[in-house]
Amino acid sequence: MPFTTVDVVIFTVIEARLRVLLVQRPNVKDDPCPGLWALPGGFVDVDRDDSLEACARRKLLEKTAVVSPYLEQLGSWGGARRDPRGWSATHVYFALIPAEGLQLAKGANAAEVGWFEVDEVLGWPALAFDHAEILRAAVDRLRSKVEYTSLPAFLLEEPFTLPQLQRMYEVVLGRDVDKSGFRTRMLAAHFLEEAGYVAGHSNRPAMGYRLRDRTGPVVFPRTFSPRQ
Amino acid sequence: MPFTTVDVVIFTVIEARLRVLLVQRPNVKDDPCPGLWALPGGFVDVDRDDSLEACARRKLLEKTAVVSPYLEQLGSWGGARRDPRGWSATHVYFALIPAEGLQLAKGANAAEVGWFEVDEVLGWPALAFDHAEILRAAVDRLRSKVEYTSLPAFLLEEPFTLPQLQRMYEVVLGRDVDKSGFRTRMLAAHFLEEAGYVAGHSNRPAMGYRLRDRTGPVVFPRTFSPRQ
Repeated sequence: MPFTTVDVVIFTVIEARLRVLLVQRPNVKDDPCPGLWALPGGFVDVDRDDSLEACARRKLLEKTAVVSPYLEQLGSWGGARRDPRGWSATHVYFALIPAEGLQLAKGANAAEVGWFEVDEVLGWPALAFDHAEILRAAVDRLRSKVEYTSLPAFLLEEPFTLPQLQRMYEVVLGRDVDKSGFRTRMLAAHFLEEAGYVAGHSNRPAMGYRLRDRTGPVVFPRTFSPRQ
Repeated sequence: MPFTTVDVVIFTVIEARLRVLLVQRPNVKDDPCPGLWALPGGFVDVDRDDSLEACARRKLLEKTAVVSPYLEQLGSWGGARRDPRGWSATHVYFALIPAEGLQLAKGANAAEVGWFEVDEVLGWPALAFDHAEILRAAVDRLRSKVEYTSLPAFLLEEPFTLPQLQRMYEVVLGRDVDKSGFRTRMLAAHFLEEAGYVAGHSNRPAMGYRLRDRTGPVVFPRTFSPRQ
């Protein structure tokens, strides 16, 4: 019978760069991939986890102290050779969390935990197990979904301004977004509500927004794109 | 440790209706959900299956004798209560297969196997385990992907005509597709190649087509839809 793990690709934006949380594998007898960096995750605990998603939330909480991230299932990776300990299958989720107030807790059995620039990590020679392939898939999914949904809003603390939201699209996509009409297009998509004035650029007052619905992103109509 | 299964939602079109393959749970001591219909699937066999996808292909072959279906990962369902035998996680794939030449093989431990109209099954009071929820998700994913990809082509034997392709869109979506320009739009998406004339409607010759690339569907540009 295969053993089952849940891994989480946790994204945030720090200093205008998209980053992912990695943990370093310990240098302990019989523990595979010693010293390599890995996605946070672990075995399903049948006594504590009611579901796969509950396991993902627990792993995320253990590493970041974040209680309510945006969490979405990415996919499964499973086979005979991905883990030297035997046939294994992992259920992978990706999470988006705002960077404000992030705390990093050192794991009980991980020496180091850190946020790394995604594009840098994708260029490393190796991560533990098949985690490089998993990270690649998560980045592709995120960048693809950002093209046609309101997903970047989940990287921001509320309330946020429209310029802040635009910067999130640009940071994730790695390119500038057409500024003219961005405001109009975002408001026309009806996923935001006004939350009162806040200090904007150069401390001038700007309208702050929050999401109408935090359960998930809104999909934009197919003739609609933040680039247009 | 949870036990691991792979389930497959196998779609085909028979007599202009979208259908799904179901197997009936046996009436055997200690076997859960006796007599209920279920998606085909089963435990990962660590001695035979090299990967999750290999297990899915094996399950599909056992039930349909089809070797090269279009197969795509749908998602995972896992938790403490979905199966009375204990904490379990299933990796679900969906498959599209042409109806021509389909053989149904009765499974070693399934009394009955059959193709059922999807919309009818979605109205049944129950399927085994959480398979009704899984089927719902598979249908939603299929109908959503059909809107903006060439996926319906995988339901047809090659070569096929453009009217046959249009009917596949209509069968899956459950509505007519705008006929004017369908041909032009399909050819402009560059996923087809000519395969010579075949007998078309009323036995008149029509151009037959096949996919340029059978590894997966082509995504249409976002300003493009079979409905427009």
